[in-house]
Amino acid sequence: MMIDLNSDLGEGFGRWKSGEDEALMPLISSANVACGYHAGDAAIMTRTVEMAKAHGVDVGAHVGLPDKLGFGRVAMDIDPRELAKHALYQLGALYAIAKAQGVRVVHAGGHGAMDAMSRKNPAYNERMMEVFAAFDKDLIIRAMPNGNKAAFAKSLGLRTIGLIFADRAYDDDGNLVNRAIPNSVITDEEVVVQRVSQFMHDSTITAMSGKIIKFDAKSILVHSDTPGAVQIAQAVRRTVEAGGGKVVPASRMLD
Amino acid sequence: MMIDLNSDLGEGFGRWKSGEDEALMPLISSANVACGYHAGDAAIMTRTVEMAKAHGVDVGAHVGLPDKLGFGRVAMDIDPRELAKHALYQLGALYAIAKAQGVRVVHAGGHGAMDAMSRKNPAYNERMMEVFAAFDKDLIIRAMPNGNKAAFAKSLGLRTIGLIFADRAYDDDGNLVNRAIPNSVITDEEVVVQRVSQFMHDSTITAMSGKIIKFDAKSILVHSDTPGAVQIAQAVRRTVEAGGGKVVPASRMLD
Amino acid sequence: MMIDLNSDLGEGFGRWKSGEDEALMPLISSANVACGYHAGDAAIMTRTVEMAKAHGVDVGAHVGLPDKLGFGRVAMDIDPRELAKHALYQLGALYAIAKAQGVRVVHAGGHGAMDAMSRKNPAYNERMMEVFAAFDKDLIIRAMPNGNKAAFAKSLGLRTIGLIFADRAYDDDGNLVNRAIPNSVITDEEVVVQRVSQFMHDSTITAMSGKIIKFDAKSILVHSDTPGAVQIAQAVRRTVEAGGGKVVPASRMLD
Amino acid sequence: MMIDLNSDLGEGFGRWKSGEDEALMPLISSANVACGYHAGDAAIMTRTVEMAKAHGVDVGAHVGLPDKLGFGRVAMDIDPRELAKHALYQLGALYAIAKAQGVRVVHAGGHGAMDAMSRKNPAYNERMMEVFAAFDKDLIIRAMPNGNKAAFAKSLGLRTIGLIFADRAYDDDGNLVNRAIPNSVITDEEVVVQRVSQFMHDSTITAMSGKIIKFDAKSILVHSDTPGAVQIAQAVRRTVEAGGGKVVPASRMLD
Repeated sequence: MMIDLNSDLGEGFGRWKSGEDEALMPLISSANVACGYHAGDAAIMTRTVEMAKAHGVDVGAHVGLPDKLGFGRVAMDIDPRELAKHALYQLGALYAIAKAQGVRVVHAGGHGAMDAMSRKNPAYNERMMEVFAAFDKDLIIRAMPNGNKAAFAKSLGLRTIGLIFADRAYDDDGNLVNRAIPNSVITDEEVVVQRVSQFMHDSTITAMSGKIIKFDAKSILVHSDTPGAVQIAQAVRRTVEAGGGKVVPASRMLD
Repeated sequence: MMIDLNSDLGEGFGRWKSGEDEALMPLISSANVACGYHAGDAAIMTRTVEMAKAHGVDVGAHVGLPDKLGFGRVAMDIDPRELAKHALYQLGALYAIAKAQGVRVVHAGGHGAMDAMSRKNPAYNERMMEVFAAFDKDLIIRAMPNGNKAAFAKSLGLRTIGLIFADRAYDDDGNLVNRAIPNSVITDEEVVVQRVSQFMHDSTITAMSGKIIKFDAKSILVHSDTPGAVQIAQAVRRTVEAGGGKVVPASRMLD
Repeated sequence: MMIDLNSDLGEGFGRWKSGEDEALMPLISSANVACGYHAGDAAIMTRTVEMAKAHGVDVGAHVGLPDKLGFGRVAMDIDPRELAKHALYQLGALYAIAKAQGVRVVHAGGHGAMDAMSRKNPAYNERMMEVFAAFDKDLIIRAMPNGNKAAFAKSLGLRTIGLIFADRAYDDDGNLVNRAIPNSVITDEEVVVQRVSQFMHDSTITAMSGKIIKFDAKSILVHSDTPGAVQIAQAVRRTVEAGGGKVVPASRMLD
Repeated sequence: MMIDLNSDLGEGFGRWKSGEDEALMPLISSANVACGYHAGDAAIMTRTVEMAKAHGVDVGAHVGLPDKLGFGRVAMDIDPRELAKHALYQLGALYAIAKAQGVRVVHAGGHGAMDAMSRKNPAYNERMMEVFAAFDKDLIIRAMPNGNKAAFAKSLGLRTIGLIFADRAYDDDGNLVNRAIPNSVITDEEVVVQRVSQFMHDSTITAMSGKIIKFDAKSILVHSDTPGAVQIAQAVRRTVEAGGGKVVPASRMLD
């Protein structure tokens, strides 16, 4: 079983750093690169692509809301068509930085509050994926297996890959439990290992209630900005490999 | 004689407008589009590309310093390699917005204080043109015929086109007279017409001192942000055509 | 009857202008000055205070969301306490610029999407007014007479003044009709004159439905960013004076 | 001998942190607070003032260039009068945030590239100090004892205090050796201790060349953004006290 291990990287700005990108890069197979809106800038993007290239890691655009102060985590009542233009702008910026290094932008997705905004108004995701498809039909879209994002992406001719979170609790519908709820974020390395181990065994995750849910997923996300991210990523990778899996970039799985 | 008439467009930001882009677009053959640093944003860039496409006008990236407050006109002691990364970022952003509309980014150049910075330190232009070439060797670079920018661009395999300014006075070396000096900016439509007429006749411009200078140029710039810009652009176009010239995008001249 | 005529000014940014501040300043009695978040910058604020001082116009802080791209008109799911800190920051910035000119900041209020946000969640207005009161109890708060904003402001010891809009339609509850609804914005000078005339006569405004509503208001707002703003402001002033009123800054009414 | 120990704090932005402010605050007597231009935002400023208040630490405005991307360390060819307006804006923002907590802004100074810009063009410092004086004559200006900044500040009626750097090498003229030169930044705690000890003994510092220079200074700066800043601050404080000195905020020395 091939597993894509991905993480959000390049989330600094100017002199401000965020996350241990150098230590994470050798562990993952795909980097979701911040594109200068919620975080990141041209210099950080360049460095992140260089590192990804050196480690054979897939590069993808992790586009955000135009709000560095709020780190793209503050929902905004922005027009979905407007947001899609910003997404395309960011995707292109990363595309050029990668192309000048001979690197391809393989995947694209939205950061932060965009998910919550899209759940209330699917037009956010839809308009965004339309511009992704208009730019490059070969882009890979990571999506939670139970949502309608994957179906919409496929209808546009985009490729998709199912995504699960190693370190977040699920509700009975297979959605993430809100961060505000206790124990929604799992930081105990042993629990993470147990969950990934179970998923590698039978493609299931146990929800908060105890309900066992099956997920059609090949991509596991590890957050880069929590303390212990490197240890968690190491543990996830080790567990994937112990379960007979192989960490492989999404681009190589789908080609 | 084919002449490329170009102008800096899309220089608004959010709700703020700048220049009469709608009226200028039908008159010009190339649009230098602001890319979101000194001016412009994803929505304005999208609209500007749409207009250019509708009028068969070449689209180019007009990249600027990261400074909207100063409109990219404040020289900064930024590292040239850093600036080049910002230039590439902007070029890519426009590239994606254009590509999603089936439009090609044909040319690229720097805005505002970059010229003055490059005159003091050629590394600014050099690093910038290196990333342009790394991104797309087919990009066209507009350059003053007497400078070393054109030679450097050619050495990288980029294509160049000589540029003159219809509305700016020249010194005896063929450089622009500083804006701070009286009469350096020519706003009298009749004088502009006389100058363009002379240039169409024998490829010369009369410098402030009276010295006659020959220019190997096929591209004329009209500023979009001065009052009367539309009238000046109309006059330039009329004069080019009266002199037996034809206004043609640079891309069609060089292909 | 003393009437305070106020307008939102200083809404440019860097080189970008907005509104005919020079022409409006002699017509109004209070300027709501943008403070660098949704619009405005230190230079524009300085110029706006200079003009207000020259015309004996009250200076107030018109604080906005941290979003120039959206001009503060995009609702954000920001924490009310966080927003209040931004409001205080802006108020202080204007306070210093005014103080250096010997001018007092007399009033304060929120711009753009803040109103809609506060209607859904009063905490936005409440936290904001708490920091206003903590900074200066003498600040005057303009508020629609039918809302609970005025009551809250008074409970903190702030002074209030009732506000009506010369150019906006009202519903039967005395709230503004949404801008998206036809005829919600009144641009016909004659209609504006008729409305102000009626208000000067018996303190009523006729709602869209025909219902006549009484307003306890002494302050009339004229928008500065619509074409014809100067003519409308002149008409309102003329009508106030024709109705026996006198245009006077709020600070002089309440002192 | 009373010594003011000061440090630049609050240099994060949004979610990005910088420096160990919590650990430094109990060690210092004056905090130079970033005011939202090169770093800092309303929330961070609020928190920094709260901490300073809790520890009896003087609060001052550490104003910067309008450039978060460059952290205010990139020299800009901005107009000195324009810069002064930005400085006043920032000072006011901090003033309001402090006032709402019952805290006074005691001192003010410039950050980053401003120093180098002022050495080339004293107008930067002069215009800035003029607006400081126009806002509040009681502000304290920290200045290197050998420069003309102190004299100019005094001529405006401002109070001054001599400043030395515990961790930076000096040239024979008593200026800081450029950061680009090896050993210009002193990170060895023992060397710092030796230098402060010598200064406490006879008010001298040994320049890089070995020359011994006398400084009329009562304020020692400790940088907050270098690794080991907390240890260095502890060492400086210990050394000051071992030398018979007492760490006291500038405001208490000068009142």
